[in-house]
Amino acid sequence: MPELRKDPFSDRWVIFAEDRDRRPNEYRRTHYQRQASRCPFCAGNERSTPAPIALYGHNHQPKHPASQLDQDWLVRVVPNKFPALTKNGSADTSPLAPQLPRAEPRPVLNPLFESRPAIGSHEVVVESPRHVASLTALTDDEVKLAIRAYHDRLRHLRQLESIAYALVFKNVGPAAGASLEHAHSQIAATPIVPIDVQRELDAAAHYYATDGCCAYCRILDQEFATGDRVVAETTHFFAFCPYASRTPYEMWILPKRHVSHFDQQNSDSLPELALFLRQCLRQLESLHPHLAYNFFIHTAPFDTSDLDHYHWHIEVIPRLTTAAGFEWGAGCFINPVLPEKAAMALRG
Amino acid sequence: MPELRKDPFSDRWVIFAEDRDRRPNEYRRTHYQRQASRCPFCAGNERSTPAPIALYGHNHQPKHPASQLDQDWLVRVVPNKFPALTKNGSADTSPLAPQLPRAEPRPVLNPLFESRPAIGSHEVVVESPRHVASLTALTDDEVKLAIRAYHDRLRHLRQLESIAYALVFKNVGPAAGASLEHAHSQIAATPIVPIDVQRELDAAAHYYATDGCCAYCRILDQEFATGDRVVAETTHFFAFCPYASRTPYEMWILPKRHVSHFDQQNSDSLPELALFLRQCLRQLESLHPHLAYNFFIHTAPFDTSDLDHYHWHIEVIPRLTTAAGFEWGAGCFINPVLPEKAAMALRG
Repeated sequence: MPELRKDPFSDRWVIFAEDRDRRPNEYRRTHYQRQASRCPFCAGNERSTPAPIALYGHNHQPKHPASQLDQDWLVRVVPNKFPALTKNGSADTSPLAPQLPRAEPRPVLNPLFESRPAIGSHEVVVESPRHVASLTALTDDEVKLAIRAYHDRLRHLRQLESIAYALVFKNVGPAAGASLEHAHSQIAATPIVPIDVQRELDAAAHYYATDGCCAYCRILDQEFATGDRVVAETTHFFAFCPYASRTPYEMWILPKRHVSHFDQQNSDSLPELALFLRQCLRQLESLHPHLAYNFFIHTAPFDTSDLDHYHWHIEVIPRLTTAAGFEWGAGCFINPVLPEKAAMALRG
Repeated sequence: MPELRKDPFSDRWVIFAEDRDRRPNEYRRTHYQRQASRCPFCAGNERSTPAPIALYGHNHQPKHPASQLDQDWLVRVVPNKFPALTKNGSADTSPLAPQLPRAEPRPVLNPLFESRPAIGSHEVVVESPRHVASLTALTDDEVKLAIRAYHDRLRHLRQLESIAYALVFKNVGPAAGASLEHAHSQIAATPIVPIDVQRELDAAAHYYATDGCCAYCRILDQEFATGDRVVAETTHFFAFCPYASRTPYEMWILPKRHVSHFDQQNSDSLPELALFLRQCLRQLESLHPHLAYNFFIHTAPFDTSDLDHYHWHIEVIPRLTTAAGFEWGAGCFINPVLPEKAAMALRG
């Protein structure tokens, strides 16, 4: 059964998921796991994944639950076959239901060895029935439905008592930890709030207490005023390279209007977000074709109501450089490209 | 000039070092930069590096300063040719001297955009005149002198007013961020205490305040008592796989007797440490030949005197898996190998 353990020196949780060791390329990082002809995410290979959690077809309405062999889909949400979190520790990959057991922490007998069951869920969003390698190759409908699926799943997961947080993330390229080429993203629902999110929340709360406004809103204003690090904008969204970017061409996307929870973002604006995200990634790929990258959505935890001090956002992390001993040992990054130059290049 | 910028949401510093962009393989991660025949670290190619900071020859006494073309060395400390930190922002790679300008932070006009000059030093410890790829291939003399060089350099760097911390670290293999194959390690001296070290210090101080003893000493006792995660030991040192290991086969090495600062570790015990580190890495490489890995030394900051609550240690991070979007977004790791099983395998 997957287990969460907490490192006492960093407050960092680690998920031990031994079954993931079965993933064929867990220890090989330079190529993908399978050839396109055997891709488990392609249309026609629906049997290769566990039964879907939801399907989005041409009529844009989710089918939930859906039959495994249903081929009428553009976006398909399935349980991860090698999950890092499971609903009760078994190999059962059926989706979480509200009757999920509460992921009570084990009593902490020794603060140096804190542990709890890794109860949660680990879902995959297959973004197209076609074998395309990048979100930038999705059709308008596909990319809109992928973002819609994130939103729907988070709205569902927030109702489950045992779930504190759900992280939407994407791995593109073996260098970014992807094992399959076919465009997909993942949603990991956890019984704890991830430490990096908690630190952001704490820092944002501190800023709010001192300055009386949301730090993200303030940064948006200031970035817009100077323009040096701006990548692009639409009516409701804004993309820029952050001042202390960890990696070359790191890029954040935020809603211009303050919203703390991604799943509270107005549904009407999601198609605009989808096309904007695809546009920003296209700008990135035009500079670095076949780029390996990750993105993830940082949003407020489920057990909070609207927060004045926190602002959901997407962080895009290109993996052009390799985190080395300095980064692992210091928690400090070395970046050879200033964000002002990165943004200028991205603007074209 | 290299610049340090602080991310307001994570307190993470980023070093912007544009000159490092000149490193030929900065954007390629699957192979080394040069062939052995042109290796700048091999005996005979001393001209390829800046003038050495110190040389350690067969008589084991450091030569400091040393002439660039002196070929009587087993271990050679040189300035990094593409430094992330420099003594005054110029391209001058001569070693730091006590008259180094103080790295005063720039006045913080806006807490969202905090910056200071990346003043410090960035040194390379070439561990053998022979072209060997791993510390495990060093002779007894070479590995002892490499550890001796770490110790000597930290004792020197701690005297410099502008330096708060020096991180000793090692990158082995392109997957671990190494650009050159020839066995070497690095020392980055920074004007700030790295956030990961500060968090360890804070957690250790908290534990001490609650429990009245050093958390590392307590863990040593408990690991020794159960034995499940023990890898090896000598008279003065202990190696184990930590309870919440981030990566498969992560391993920590600690002195058994409490010492907070690596540079205060008794010099007489350093040869034992050197041979023990080499032995532990050999155990790791016997399981995973040609393994990519990092290690680094966590030690107390220079401006602290002996700390009862902190304990210097070496963390070895094998890079068998790839940190992906989940790790980057959550600060939480997924590890397919329990440390109990890793330690059992490492014990053979």
